[in-house]
Amino acid sequence: MAMDEVPGSVGTTASLSLRMGQVFFSCASLLFMSLGADFYSYTAFCYQITVMGLVIPWSFTLALADGYCILFKCPLHQSGILIILIIGDWVLSVLTLAAASSTASIVDLLIKANGPICLPNTYTCARYQMSAAMAFFSWSLSMASSLVNLWLLPSFV
Amino acid sequence: MAMDEVPGSVGTTASLSLRMGQVFFSCASLLFMSLGADFYSYTAFCYQITVMGLVIPWSFTLALADGYCILFKCPLHQSGILIILIIGDWVLSVLTLAAASSTASIVDLLIKANGPICLPNTYTCARYQMSAAMAFFSWSLSMASSLVNLWLLPSFV
Repeated sequence: MAMDEVPGSVGTTASLSLRMGQVFFSCASLLFMSLGADFYSYTAFCYQITVMGLVIPWSFTLALADGYCILFKCPLHQSGILIILIIGDWVLSVLTLAAASSTASIVDLLIKANGPICLPNTYTCARYQMSAAMAFFSWSLSMASSLVNLWLLPSFV
Repeated sequence: MAMDEVPGSVGTTASLSLRMGQVFFSCASLLFMSLGADFYSYTAFCYQITVMGLVIPWSFTLALADGYCILFKCPLHQSGILIILIIGDWVLSVLTLAAASSTASIVDLLIKANGPICLPNTYTCARYQMSAAMAFFSWSLSMASSLVNLWLLPSFV
């Protein structure tokens, strides 16, 4: 099976769109979280910001590499590169899913507790919810990248 | 590549051990969670119990199937069965990871809040922490099963 036939593998337009989506959703998650009031009081929120700070440079670098390969038709299809991409994407997607579900459960608890942080006129909890949703989208795209590359890998071994 | 050479694929002893580990850790997580006091007040805890109630019958059934195949040497290596196993394991591992991280973040918040639920003499929060840890172990084993079967799949296509 030729590698270029698989959409979403590294160096294709679909891969570039996946990476751009990851960067977009991660930045949106980071912004929604940072615009909330005292996010630093909660471990889960700080953890999500840390993870997003890892996902954004990783996906942005790979988006640049994909764009370069589309323009100049350079071959990126080597077993070593694929393994690094699969492991990196997989680790980041696991971290993103953990961060997103932690944030979602904490926000749920805050809304139920009806404390001062979730006043209806400040939209703080709504921002946290949006941040968790964006992190879930970013997770699904990272997982897609990882699975597509993993699917390709056995054709090299 | 012959299927029987890959340890952990369906119908091997390694797969049976993976399944037994999943059943063990899921049951432990469910027990630790149920022994805690008012777990039904928190959405994340109820969610984790639901997920564990899905993982246990799934893994137990597959452990039985693996044991049967080891004893009677029946072939389970068909593309359709593998796809069902991969998707099922993957969905359950994602749900387990989400449940485990939600529980862990809620327990972290409860311990920080120093409320009446986390009194040191009742060990309630310690039980919740153990439950989250067991769920993480169960997640890692589910993910291993899914990845091993996914690695096998391209040799059929």
